[in-house]
Amino acid sequence: MKILVPTTVALETAMPNGVEVIRYDPNLTLPDDALDASVLVLWGMPMDRLREAAQRLHSLAFVQLVSAGYEYMARAGFDESVVVCNGRGLHDRPVAEHALALMLAGARSLHRAHDAQGARQWDSGLGGIQPIDAPARFTTLQGARVTIWGFGSIGRTLASMLTNLGAEVTGVARTARVDNGIRVVAADSVAAELPSTDVLVLILPSTVETQKVVDAEVLSRLPSHAWVVNVGRGDAIDHAALVDALEAGRLGGAALDVTDPEPLPADAALWSAPNLILTPHAAGGRPEGVGRLLAENLERLTAGSPLRNVVHPAR
Amino acid sequence: MKILVPTTVALETAMPNGVEVIRYDPNLTLPDDALDASVLVLWGMPMDRLREAAQRLHSLAFVQLVSAGYEYMARAGFDESVVVCNGRGLHDRPVAEHALALMLAGARSLHRAHDAQGARQWDSGLGGIQPIDAPARFTTLQGARVTIWGFGSIGRTLASMLTNLGAEVTGVARTARVDNGIRVVAADSVAAELPSTDVLVLILPSTVETQKVVDAEVLSRLPSHAWVVNVGRGDAIDHAALVDALEAGRLGGAALDVTDPEPLPADAALWSAPNLILTPHAAGGRPEGVGRLLAENLERLTAGSPLRNVVHPAR
Repeated sequence: MKILVPTTVALETAMPNGVEVIRYDPNLTLPDDALDASVLVLWGMPMDRLREAAQRLHSLAFVQLVSAGYEYMARAGFDESVVVCNGRGLHDRPVAEHALALMLAGARSLHRAHDAQGARQWDSGLGGIQPIDAPARFTTLQGARVTIWGFGSIGRTLASMLTNLGAEVTGVARTARVDNGIRVVAADSVAAELPSTDVLVLILPSTVETQKVVDAEVLSRLPSHAWVVNVGRGDAIDHAALVDALEAGRLGGAALDVTDPEPLPADAALWSAPNLILTPHAAGGRPEGVGRLLAENLERLTAGSPLRNVVHPAR
Repeated sequence: MKILVPTTVALETAMPNGVEVIRYDPNLTLPDDALDASVLVLWGMPMDRLREAAQRLHSLAFVQLVSAGYEYMARAGFDESVVVCNGRGLHDRPVAEHALALMLAGARSLHRAHDAQGARQWDSGLGGIQPIDAPARFTTLQGARVTIWGFGSIGRTLASMLTNLGAEVTGVARTARVDNGIRVVAADSVAAELPSTDVLVLILPSTVETQKVVDAEVLSRLPSHAWVVNVGRGDAIDHAALVDALEAGRLGGAALDVTDPEPLPADAALWSAPNLILTPHAAGGRPEGVGRLLAENLERLTAGSPLRNVVHPAR
């Protein structure tokens, strides 16, 4: 079995016997001797190269994505018969850790401290003895009520981190359930959770249903000290409504690792909204365990068993 | 029993029977009707007020500090007979959480992201797919080797947080031991730990022995990707040596919540050292459980039992 593995991916485990690994540069046209490969691993291939690969790989049976998102695959033009698996699980810890970093940066006002540092000013309002009768603020994860909208494997990993730090976590997903001890409510009843939310974390994929799902109305239901953190996809937030809420002080702050579009244009209002922390889609990009997932799926492919993380054909 | 409690402190529990709580403003001279108090709780009293209180409180038997540090009490002039207890434990979670926030900010380059945001620039080097063959950097707590120098109750709390996030923690204290499963080495053998340290966290009190204990030699033993985080006291670091190391790229970065002196003067070189994150002594300032500690010590005082957290007389 000939498999194409991009040079952007580290394989930490050996591949099964009989697997021939061909390395390719995802930014270049595939070499002719790679075109009979039956397996394609994808990580960081631009859309024009992806369309080209879909046309030229005549023996392709299986695509292993490293990304969790797969919405772009619909535009690439692969044959319907090609099975596609995503990288669900590979980004759990890196993305959850980044979300935690953003939440703690918000709680500890690191953005304001950074501004003060740039002005060579010791901001006594941020440090020293904190007032005991201050209005509600988000200053610690201890006792903070965190709502994680989009409760998959990243959400579960983050929930565990947050619970260890003393937060009370609620998940939001398609269906209500109790998941590893975390109360998960259905998305259509999220409105009831918002008034008692200190931090709303978004880990939503980009789908028709999630477009601007966090709009002016959702934002208005959050307490004015609440923070919004997005490590999913940028189009889940109505950014004009977010900027309005931040500028009006109707929201404690926002920390976004994703925007819409990306890169964010230099003239976007988001850049300079108050209490906004922005990182350039840096939460993931460091998958863990690609080799293990790939080896397992190749073994299953050979054995004719069901693959892990199938996203096409839809089940 | 008349006790003086500053207006800067919230008491979350009731005091024992027979205790009369007098609230006072720690920035003002104590009122005459407070001078026969036998117990003084301290939090945020300036040194001139403290010296005044030491002179005027003629019936004082016991001082309960909220701070963990107590080095300033030697300069206040209280009678030798007054028993002093510190606030050990009240700051464990707030300070550990701040240290965690600083470490994650360093790992996730939030300071560089903030600079890029200010310039309205999407820094692709920070986001997207990370190179798999990059030189060693500190980018995640997962697998990071963290050395916590000063391993008391804050250190233990931080170690637990870090272990949950996948870090390998080593403590440094006066005597070697195993503490809650954490390997703790003696301070005189810290040099051997430094070359394999990704993050050096300082939680040292200010004593004669800890003055500039992190000097050019200590810094030179750390790998060039290592970060130094200080949430203890500012005088534990030779800041000139730190600035040198940062400017020469011999250190990954530093995140300081404490400096020497504080506030840091506007012309200090620290403000603008590269890869330096500075917060204005903001880790603590939010004690948890003052009422419980105070009530317990008042009951012990009444019963004649040993008090908790005695720092004077020295044992």
